[in-house]
Amino acid sequence: MRMDEMILVSIDDHSIEPPDMYDKHLPAKYKDQAPKIVRGANGNDQWVFQGQASSTPFGMAATVGWPREEWGFNPGAFSELRPGCFDVHERVRDMNANGVLGSMCFPTMAGFNARTFTEAGDKDLSLVMLQAYNDWHIDEWCAAYPGRFIPLGIVPMWDVDLAVAEVHRIGKKGCKSISFLEAPHAQGYPSFLSGHWDPMLQAIVEENMVLSLHIGGALGLINQPPEAPIDHLIVLSTQITMLVAQDLLFGPTFRKFPKLRVALSEGGIGWIPFYLERADRHFQNQAWIDNSFGDGVLPSDVFREHILACYITDRSGLALRERIGVDILAWECDYPHTDTTWPESPEYAWSEFQDTGCSDEDIHKITWENACRFYDWDPFAHTTKEQATVGALRALASDVDTTRMPKDQWRKQNEAAGIGLVPNA
Amino acid sequence: MRMDEMILVSIDDHSIEPPDMYDKHLPAKYKDQAPKIVRGANGNDQWVFQGQASSTPFGMAATVGWPREEWGFNPGAFSELRPGCFDVHERVRDMNANGVLGSMCFPTMAGFNARTFTEAGDKDLSLVMLQAYNDWHIDEWCAAYPGRFIPLGIVPMWDVDLAVAEVHRIGKKGCKSISFLEAPHAQGYPSFLSGHWDPMLQAIVEENMVLSLHIGGALGLINQPPEAPIDHLIVLSTQITMLVAQDLLFGPTFRKFPKLRVALSEGGIGWIPFYLERADRHFQNQAWIDNSFGDGVLPSDVFREHILACYITDRSGLALRERIGVDILAWECDYPHTDTTWPESPEYAWSEFQDTGCSDEDIHKITWENACRFYDWDPFAHTTKEQATVGALRALASDVDTTRMPKDQWRKQNEAAGIGLVPNA
Repeated sequence: MRMDEMILVSIDDHSIEPPDMYDKHLPAKYKDQAPKIVRGANGNDQWVFQGQASSTPFGMAATVGWPREEWGFNPGAFSELRPGCFDVHERVRDMNANGVLGSMCFPTMAGFNARTFTEAGDKDLSLVMLQAYNDWHIDEWCAAYPGRFIPLGIVPMWDVDLAVAEVHRIGKKGCKSISFLEAPHAQGYPSFLSGHWDPMLQAIVEENMVLSLHIGGALGLINQPPEAPIDHLIVLSTQITMLVAQDLLFGPTFRKFPKLRVALSEGGIGWIPFYLERADRHFQNQAWIDNSFGDGVLPSDVFREHILACYITDRSGLALRERIGVDILAWECDYPHTDTTWPESPEYAWSEFQDTGCSDEDIHKITWENACRFYDWDPFAHTTKEQATVGALRALASDVDTTRMPKDQWRKQNEAAGIGLVPNA
Repeated sequence: MRMDEMILVSIDDHSIEPPDMYDKHLPAKYKDQAPKIVRGANGNDQWVFQGQASSTPFGMAATVGWPREEWGFNPGAFSELRPGCFDVHERVRDMNANGVLGSMCFPTMAGFNARTFTEAGDKDLSLVMLQAYNDWHIDEWCAAYPGRFIPLGIVPMWDVDLAVAEVHRIGKKGCKSISFLEAPHAQGYPSFLSGHWDPMLQAIVEENMVLSLHIGGALGLINQPPEAPIDHLIVLSTQITMLVAQDLLFGPTFRKFPKLRVALSEGGIGWIPFYLERADRHFQNQAWIDNSFGDGVLPSDVFREHILACYITDRSGLALRERIGVDILAWECDYPHTDTTWPESPEYAWSEFQDTGCSDEDIHKITWENACRFYDWDPFAHTTKEQATVGALRALASDVDTTRMPKDQWRKQNEAAGIGLVPNA
């Protein structure tokens, strides 16, 4: 096998919702009430919904075209971004340039757990806009390129019955997964252990969907020292994932829902061998604690039945892949965030596979087979495997310029071409 | 090399302070005010100090002789314990039976961070008793068997100037390390990042001592769900260690004190390859964050200059020992806690070394060389290497019975032999 023969399906990327996202997904009477982009006097774009303005920190969320020096938590304007952030046609060109066949995109404005709609006061209106987000994502973004995107929806966290209904609604139209807050108690909601979310988990199982828990929403689980530098926020994110796994594994969730499938999105994998070893040792050693995972079943067995373990770059985890389970590993690209390996994802991934002695079989499992099975998503209904490889896709994208540019330069170039303009700017 | 040729120095064990610990270390006028053991009507022993009673959860802290079913957070009586918990002569016999040459013992009643003295109201009296604890530990427990124990002291957390003075006082009489709260902010003290503890860290460096941060004191760093089972407490302990490492590494501590040596006691090692890889990737990727570890120096380099990474059983960490650094790994026994591998520590350790392909050189580093260098402690001033091996020590202990017994049986046997009696029972 050569690098160019790999097939890459990334189950962690991000769409920056475009200013016109609501145009086609709302009855006329709601048009005026939809979230809209307003460009401020400072040149930055903000979403305004129900009178509340919020700007996306493009400096962390959409840096794919920029030099590192321009990253940060700063807001920005659509026209400063690489167009693949928000334009699905440009996105697919960028995927091709990176040899990536399939992609699952998490929300940005809407929030991994529908934050924008949960925080707004008029919940009826919020539900309309949340559903319109899902419709935009499924029927417009994903549907534009069949076989290229795994549809991922969000649900109203403020009402579990509404969440159940939305799971069923989007499940029926082919959505494959729900993005949810990785540890609900981190933001004051009932925990997964509480049973509060069980009807939603049941609906997810019934619709054959995956619960995708992306890092970033539960940093409140760790009491950082008051002087903690910004590094803590980024380095510790994947630690939270381990706490999430512990809640699900030693709490009742997996025992109640033996068919529940959970992806630990961007959670990293290098912590897993240690965690599973410690969990099993604990379980076997502390025999006085009254819990059972079933006859002869270890915590690590249950983990492997439920979890998809996802990573961007992680030599330590790959080196110990047999201790994790090669069948539960999945690769991610994280376009257009700072951690993405775009446009050199194949080179990064291949180099790690070679350094850690992965076989061709291992590589296929990690780059696409596990993800496609877990999400029950089949890209080969739309393309042949020969047309799906890194080499074949890159051959389609020889005209894509992947050079990094300062955001000022993006703004000039994009605005001249009429890209990233906002209606009222 | 054979298993019997290993030399084992454990830098994490625990003494259960015996009822008579204060007899030889106080001026007459303080004798009545020392913490004393009172046996209650329920048959359990409690320490009483300044009118406050507290019992040790022997069911987690001193289970070495018991069947697993009797573990728990229950209190108990000295006479229910395997005498090696509190009697130094029996301890050395138990070390011999386990092939262990050297041991560093953390406090129990006194607390890893002198909790008992910090919480009491009369701080002058507390300081007297804290110092008497250190004197008992250094001059009685450790001094009874030269070359067998690494002295480890505690300091008054309530006053950093007093802590500085105590570091110097016990440093001068050969103490090798200070046990301290792994993350002070977890219990409402200023964090390591705050600078508050700098004078103490400076004193530790000046005395050529090691800061030993044992797991268990900072579980408050993690906001567990309200329904968290008891498993969380045990499985997550080593997660805290990673948070402690992050505080020290990305905070100013290591940069301010380039010679500070910190042992992450019972912290486990399997999380380290992932953590260091993530820390380095973060540091190199997020170039906009204003921090430097020195020209061309990576976070992982700094980690390896300061840290001793300690484990009891950890195949994942050993398998990736080259990614951690074989020179910073150290083995632990954890006698008499639930996690101990006694009396089969050599078999456990050897099996893990073989499974992970450790060389003789690796094994010597991990079982004694690294610990002896880090703590600047030389057991071979008192014995030859030939007399220090697992095989040689076990040959001295053929009469030691290592059978587990229910605590009722221990009580009967010990009380008949006049062992573990308390003065007023």
